[in-house]
Amino acid sequence: MIRKEKVKVIPLGGVNEIGKNMTVVEYKNEIIVIDCGMMFPEEEMFGIDIVIPDISYLLKNKNKVKGIVLTHGHEDHIGALPYVLKQLNVPVYGTRLTLGIVETKLKEHGLLSDCTLKVVKHNDVITFNDLSVEFIKNSHSIADSCSLAIHTPLGTILHTGDFKVDYTPIDGVVMDFARLAELGRQGVILLLADSTNVERPGYTMSERTVGETFQKIFNETRGRIIVATFASNIHRIQQIIDAAMKYKRKVAISGRSIENIVEVASNLGYLRIPEDLFISIDDINKYPDHKIVIITTGSQGEPMSALARMSVSEHKKVEIQRGDLVIISATPIPGNEKFISRVINQLFKKGANVVYESLADIHVSGHACQEELKLIHTLVKPKYFMPVHGEYRHLKQHSLLAQKLGMDEDNIFIADIGQVLEITHDGAKINGNVTAGQVLVDGLGVGDVGNIVLRDRKHLSQDGILTVVVTIEKETGKVIAGPDIISRGFVYVRESEDLIEESKKIVKKVLDNCVMNQIKDWATIKSNIKDELKTYLYEKTKRNPMILPIIMEI
Amino acid sequence: MIRKEKVKVIPLGGVNEIGKNMTVVEYKNEIIVIDCGMMFPEEEMFGIDIVIPDISYLLKNKNKVKGIVLTHGHEDHIGALPYVLKQLNVPVYGTRLTLGIVETKLKEHGLLSDCTLKVVKHNDVITFNDLSVEFIKNSHSIADSCSLAIHTPLGTILHTGDFKVDYTPIDGVVMDFARLAELGRQGVILLLADSTNVERPGYTMSERTVGETFQKIFNETRGRIIVATFASNIHRIQQIIDAAMKYKRKVAISGRSIENIVEVASNLGYLRIPEDLFISIDDINKYPDHKIVIITTGSQGEPMSALARMSVSEHKKVEIQRGDLVIISATPIPGNEKFISRVINQLFKKGANVVYESLADIHVSGHACQEELKLIHTLVKPKYFMPVHGEYRHLKQHSLLAQKLGMDEDNIFIADIGQVLEITHDGAKINGNVTAGQVLVDGLGVGDVGNIVLRDRKHLSQDGILTVVVTIEKETGKVIAGPDIISRGFVYVRESEDLIEESKKIVKKVLDNCVMNQIKDWATIKSNIKDELKTYLYEKTKRNPMILPIIMEI
Repeated sequence: MIRKEKVKVIPLGGVNEIGKNMTVVEYKNEIIVIDCGMMFPEEEMFGIDIVIPDISYLLKNKNKVKGIVLTHGHEDHIGALPYVLKQLNVPVYGTRLTLGIVETKLKEHGLLSDCTLKVVKHNDVITFNDLSVEFIKNSHSIADSCSLAIHTPLGTILHTGDFKVDYTPIDGVVMDFARLAELGRQGVILLLADSTNVERPGYTMSERTVGETFQKIFNETRGRIIVATFASNIHRIQQIIDAAMKYKRKVAISGRSIENIVEVASNLGYLRIPEDLFISIDDINKYPDHKIVIITTGSQGEPMSALARMSVSEHKKVEIQRGDLVIISATPIPGNEKFISRVINQLFKKGANVVYESLADIHVSGHACQEELKLIHTLVKPKYFMPVHGEYRHLKQHSLLAQKLGMDEDNIFIADIGQVLEITHDGAKINGNVTAGQVLVDGLGVGDVGNIVLRDRKHLSQDGILTVVVTIEKETGKVIAGPDIISRGFVYVRESEDLIEESKKIVKKVLDNCVMNQIKDWATIKSNIKDELKTYLYEKTKRNPMILPIIMEI
Repeated sequence: MIRKEKVKVIPLGGVNEIGKNMTVVEYKNEIIVIDCGMMFPEEEMFGIDIVIPDISYLLKNKNKVKGIVLTHGHEDHIGALPYVLKQLNVPVYGTRLTLGIVETKLKEHGLLSDCTLKVVKHNDVITFNDLSVEFIKNSHSIADSCSLAIHTPLGTILHTGDFKVDYTPIDGVVMDFARLAELGRQGVILLLADSTNVERPGYTMSERTVGETFQKIFNETRGRIIVATFASNIHRIQQIIDAAMKYKRKVAISGRSIENIVEVASNLGYLRIPEDLFISIDDINKYPDHKIVIITTGSQGEPMSALARMSVSEHKKVEIQRGDLVIISATPIPGNEKFISRVINQLFKKGANVVYESLADIHVSGHACQEELKLIHTLVKPKYFMPVHGEYRHLKQHSLLAQKLGMDEDNIFIADIGQVLEITHDGAKINGNVTAGQVLVDGLGVGDVGNIVLRDRKHLSQDGILTVVVTIEKETGKVIAGPDIISRGFVYVRESEDLIEESKKIVKKVLDNCVMNQIKDWATIKSNIKDELKTYLYEKTKRNPMILPIIMEI
């Protein structure tokens, strides 16, 4: 008997990068897609709003795709759905809160009525054809998160999703270690596991420890309390609500994303909010300071967020006052340190007291550290392992961790996006690759901003632009009007008149030379203008503006 | 007797910001300037190379300025010297290594022969007129650093400079606590102290602990060792040299700044380099891997640095190979995390092993943590206190720390740059302010890039530019050539021909309307073109390029 059947596992995002998580599992004529995330643009991606995975491979195999299964409702797992579903309208499976958040998102994009969302519960198994997907309870910094077991004819693939080990979770239901152990005993062929925190030794603290800090701070505070946190961290919000209850404070909410999520989560029963606890942000001044908690967005210092606006007196409803206590219940995501620091400085200047991560235990991570990862590897005992959700450094460290636990390096696959891991009865190997990459979203444009546009934006941002316009007579090449020079972002013109005048002379000279030498080819004329001006300007200013010569013929 | 005399202390940089440290001490007709630093541009300062303090106040009081006294040779304390000395040529005082580094810098700017550098030793007192400056040994992440005592007729001002407490420093000479204590006993009117690490509890570890880690790693490693660190950290470099000696490896250097500093430091005797230890980077392949250490720049992942070039095979002399061990002996400065992470990923991909801060103790800070600050406050027992070297959050925390030690809040002054702290026999208060701010250096331009240029660069970076050119007949307003539309950084034109064609039609229509309505005022015509195009483009693309209409008349 020749056993030719194979399962392919293809990460389209989430490896060698943080974000836009998406993994394909393929068996014969069946494709299941795990997650559909976005990521934030890198620094050099000027003007880009978000980045989503390239799904060419899925579009080419449209008929095979049976559905998208979601592990949880964070943007890096669901954020690309509005763009992907437009091109690939397949059913989306997820738990109630996850799909609640997806719903809000699709509504904003005007797509809700066209899409099929299918709610699942933990322990549910969705059977497609040969493939079936089992949703397994785990713990993460958002409620209702899952690990996934993809059952295939060649064995079970376990994808941890984002997770941490939390023995005392806020919703009271511990991650389903028993099921993971059971699957491990039955035999898991492939583990895909979260590598985000693999560089951290030890354990991530329980979400509950943050609640204890809240209780302590609430107990000691006489002024208003303002807590900024990630909108999606329902458990964190629940703990703020609990502390408010205990210390008899009313709760107001400010910030669109947190208002949305609190509404979704409380409608679906994921938040226990006692009657009369919540008040409108308009009414906060009707209560004494020690009776108020405001939950708000802006824990990353995002310049347009509610907290950032409060810090510079641009918030319509909340004016920071001496005696306010602001708790920033989050860690800065790399790249955001300066934003958040600016907000902290402003809040202090306004007389608020600010509690942030370097000063108190007001945040815990949602991702597993080394000892937690070891637990999962030990329970699942996979035949093969593919570290996911991390840059190369994290995937590499995760591979080393697995090797320390006894795994053979040959059975570990650090893949790049688009690479195909092929598993057969005989073994597993990386076998070729499919189209994969980054699709940049800028305004309404999806994928229309490419390298040339980005390179130009970068160039423009550094030294600005100098436009040279001249009208010439077609027949003779004689200059009829101009040259005019208009610059933006280069020098402040009023202070640099000589520079501009001299530049005009240089252009004039180039044009005269062209007439003299009977050069009529525009490309050559333009390139001569560019070269001469570039040399002159660099010598005078040590700057390199973009030079844009425009010649009009009449 | 009316005691009217007063001392003014004016920070021109280094408070409410990290970097460009500069403090003025003024008594009657005498001004001493402490440090003369630069800072790196903030993210929004597109195209800016460095930022230096606004020294208008010093220029206005040119005749009073007796000299610039330097605490140590880091860029944020000496980096503005080439710009400042051009406008204000006063003597510069500093220890040997500090001035050695300054010399290299002034040479690069072609200024060395015009400037007066005066070398001092620890314990030296330089007497001006009524003011004198005493250089006191301290510990920091660069050799030959000082705290300064400025003796004034109203009492002694102590400026810690950047410092940490290190009981086992590499140069064997401990910070001069005895002198600080003596000054404290005699009475210090004002303490200015480093607030960089005030948010960190406990102590900064001794530099020597890093040496122990090096020894351990060198002992265990069989391949080549490449260590990236800050060029100016002479003690760190000494420890690498010591480890190389012990484990019989040759040392090669790569990276201009580190080559410069090693040369200066070894010429001046600050580095003990045994004969025959150093080899040229050209010769590294003449030795077996286990005989080689390369010390290099790029510990912050700077894209043009030696280590970054090695990581992408663009270094001419060093090709990373499997088995290399790369030690990144530094902490990412906020904002640099992504650069350094990119380098780490690339090095791992090339098969090197990489040791960095989250994995091992291969770096310690050069700044004092809370317990060290408490020691200094307790020794110095100042009457007044001004926290320096930090953002507002740090200055505030430092103020709280001083209060915990018993200081009265009224005696603590959190100043902004330009604010004048006036000390008399009767008391101290913030009394007015002088011109202060940021001067942006872009290429050869010092201060010529202002808000308008920066705003334009930001706008250009986000959505690019769309230039509209049209030639019209002066008399009639009739369009003779164009409208032409050229865009850069907006859309990739080949894919957006329709958009550009439609834009041309809109411009044509605006122009026709103007002719019809006899609008001949260019400003109005241009603004009509802008408005119409802006609306159209935003609707079609949700982007807002800069629109630059240019009308040529013939």
